[in-house]
Amino acid sequence: MENFAFHNTTDIRFGKERIASELKDAVSQFGNKVLLTYGGGSIKKSGLYDQVLKALDGLEVFELSGIAPNPKIDSVRAGQKLVQDNDIDVILAVGGGSVIDASKVIASAKFYDQDPWELVLDSKKRFAIDQLPIVDILTLAATGTEMNTGSVISNPETKQKLGTGGPHTPAVSFLDPTLTFSVSKWQTAAGSIDIFSHLTEQYFDQKGYENDVRNGLIEGIMRAVIKWAPVALREPDNYDARANLMWASTMALNGLPRTGNVNTWTAHPIEHELSAYYDITHGVGLGIITPHWMEFAYSNETQPLFASFGRNVWNLTGDDKTVAKAAIEKTREWLGSLEVPTTLPGVDINTEDDFEAMAASAVKINSLDQKAFVKMTTADVVNLLKAAMK
Amino acid sequence: MENFAFHNTTDIRFGKERIASELKDAVSQFGNKVLLTYGGGSIKKSGLYDQVLKALDGLEVFELSGIAPNPKIDSVRAGQKLVQDNDIDVILAVGGGSVIDASKVIASAKFYDQDPWELVLDSKKRFAIDQLPIVDILTLAATGTEMNTGSVISNPETKQKLGTGGPHTPAVSFLDPTLTFSVSKWQTAAGSIDIFSHLTEQYFDQKGYENDVRNGLIEGIMRAVIKWAPVALREPDNYDARANLMWASTMALNGLPRTGNVNTWTAHPIEHELSAYYDITHGVGLGIITPHWMEFAYSNETQPLFASFGRNVWNLTGDDKTVAKAAIEKTREWLGSLEVPTTLPGVDINTEDDFEAMAASAVKINSLDQKAFVKMTTADVVNLLKAAMK
Repeated sequence: MENFAFHNTTDIRFGKERIASELKDAVSQFGNKVLLTYGGGSIKKSGLYDQVLKALDGLEVFELSGIAPNPKIDSVRAGQKLVQDNDIDVILAVGGGSVIDASKVIASAKFYDQDPWELVLDSKKRFAIDQLPIVDILTLAATGTEMNTGSVISNPETKQKLGTGGPHTPAVSFLDPTLTFSVSKWQTAAGSIDIFSHLTEQYFDQKGYENDVRNGLIEGIMRAVIKWAPVALREPDNYDARANLMWASTMALNGLPRTGNVNTWTAHPIEHELSAYYDITHGVGLGIITPHWMEFAYSNETQPLFASFGRNVWNLTGDDKTVAKAAIEKTREWLGSLEVPTTLPGVDINTEDDFEAMAASAVKINSLDQKAFVKMTTADVVNLLKAAMK
Repeated sequence: MENFAFHNTTDIRFGKERIASELKDAVSQFGNKVLLTYGGGSIKKSGLYDQVLKALDGLEVFELSGIAPNPKIDSVRAGQKLVQDNDIDVILAVGGGSVIDASKVIASAKFYDQDPWELVLDSKKRFAIDQLPIVDILTLAATGTEMNTGSVISNPETKQKLGTGGPHTPAVSFLDPTLTFSVSKWQTAAGSIDIFSHLTEQYFDQKGYENDVRNGLIEGIMRAVIKWAPVALREPDNYDARANLMWASTMALNGLPRTGNVNTWTAHPIEHELSAYYDITHGVGLGIITPHWMEFAYSNETQPLFASFGRNVWNLTGDDKTVAKAAIEKTREWLGSLEVPTTLPGVDINTEDDFEAMAASAVKINSLDQKAFVKMTTADVVNLLKAAMK
């Protein structure tokens, strides 16, 4: 097992009916000047916006709204101006991964005098400066941003969608599964696939063969997602389904599944190119890519890990080869059952014109040809994308 | 799924060859006056003591040695005097669970003017006062104290062995599996059983049925312990075996496996009576009790959870009843394979004279007759102990 460090200080408040009694203390421990960040109008329609403002009564609340899916650097720029002009003490992010991701970079940008896109381009700059504390109320089980330091920010002008890390995880995360009852089938499926993909990215790792504690943790979370995602699609108000997906989302990307990893991801950088070029839903893109990636990655060498995946996640029995191959097929079937497209034309990508450029960018950004679990050249990525056309 | 909170700030440094380069910074971030606590002479024999003192060069180091297994309140009293007389800034605990457990209470006792046994009797008093930061170097994979707030302290005068909680987990824990290469077969087995018991205590919970993320996590750690404990017994220098057991120890009791639990334990309070009366090795006592407890706890009502245990931990197939019963038998076999006694006479408990008093105390301390996963009366505990005589 490889050496690793794990240090995650996020204060998790999981469950229903906590906001009225706990939110104000959680926020005001950091100060009285609050920037409330959120996306579109859904939190106003659901009543959450009113509930939050009521809970914060007595604090000085500023607002940044309109943070879009695949959050754009322009929202971060607007947030930077607000936190600097009003000397904000703490950011309260209410929403899904996009709102929290943008808020993390805004939290750093308070202490940066130049364009925050530079903070995204070079995460080291964020570690050299301070970062405002973030409290969040999560409304979508998907990205895991509620308990990690990462963000993904898009720049439409440069057609870039880049990951960025910072020095701190959110200080406090409220995870109320009832807030996800109203999440659409599309977003429920996409979020569940995103969670599952975070797990496969970390499970299939060069150093993943002998770390059974880590493997067991990931396999357990995978089983929970596989079981409960279809239930949440059928019964959007099923509390246990929403609760398992929400806690899976958090556990899947809080640092524990990567303990002892080399931690090189493949499906995500490829998908980020799709989102950057076509602004498709991230989780749906991952679901399209993942089975093709598994077929590419399976070999005699990787067979043991695919066999463990088959036995411990899909409860398959048999010899390694049979179990490994059946596990890939089971994964494909499960993804296909989630009522979202499973091909690129299904998300309106009907041309191969950009594949070469996207593939080259994905390979370059994550060094897929040098560091990936199974190394991928630009040609390999192009072939994968072509296979995903049908 | 039940509401829960999770907030664990321990900074984990897992792996080999970290102490020389990282220990001094980890300790001195809290100050220059250090109380080094340890047990008997084993850390001197192994060279760890010299390595630690060399790493701490330049800091002012005081020492408290002789902290025994099932740590006694007298060690805490001696530590209290040292931290108060020398205005200690930080405790460096080097050893197994006993050393770290005692150090946690000493860390609170610095800020308490009376006998620290009162802090053990009433944990609330510890939450009302400050606590020194603790850095630890773990030398035994067993109790999980390296990433939680708990301690167990014994008072031989009153024949009490009591759990106590405090406000803080250790600040930094160094987990170096190579430090456990020299752990005896007896302690390796006992430690592995302790880890496994922590997992069963939390898995078999009234609220454990629908929390699949939590269940999957526990099942995964159980599989790792079951697989690697026999390897560590056969090959004491097997790094992956020691590493999996060490990380399992930490993960088994850091708050994650209890998320959403009622969290009532049964085997531990019964074993604590055995240790308090006979000073036997905690993990060995747990191994004796656990299969008898499982037979007691199994019923039509609890069958689903025992069946999940059988399928996901022991890879058994079949109907619920068959799988559940076979899982208990598998557990008994595994415990029996670990080369430690499996009956009370095996640990020199040859009389039933104290069973009534021990049973009554166990029931009272943990409200086993009111709150346990399967409620136990004093008579039930006496019957369990009698069954463990052969």
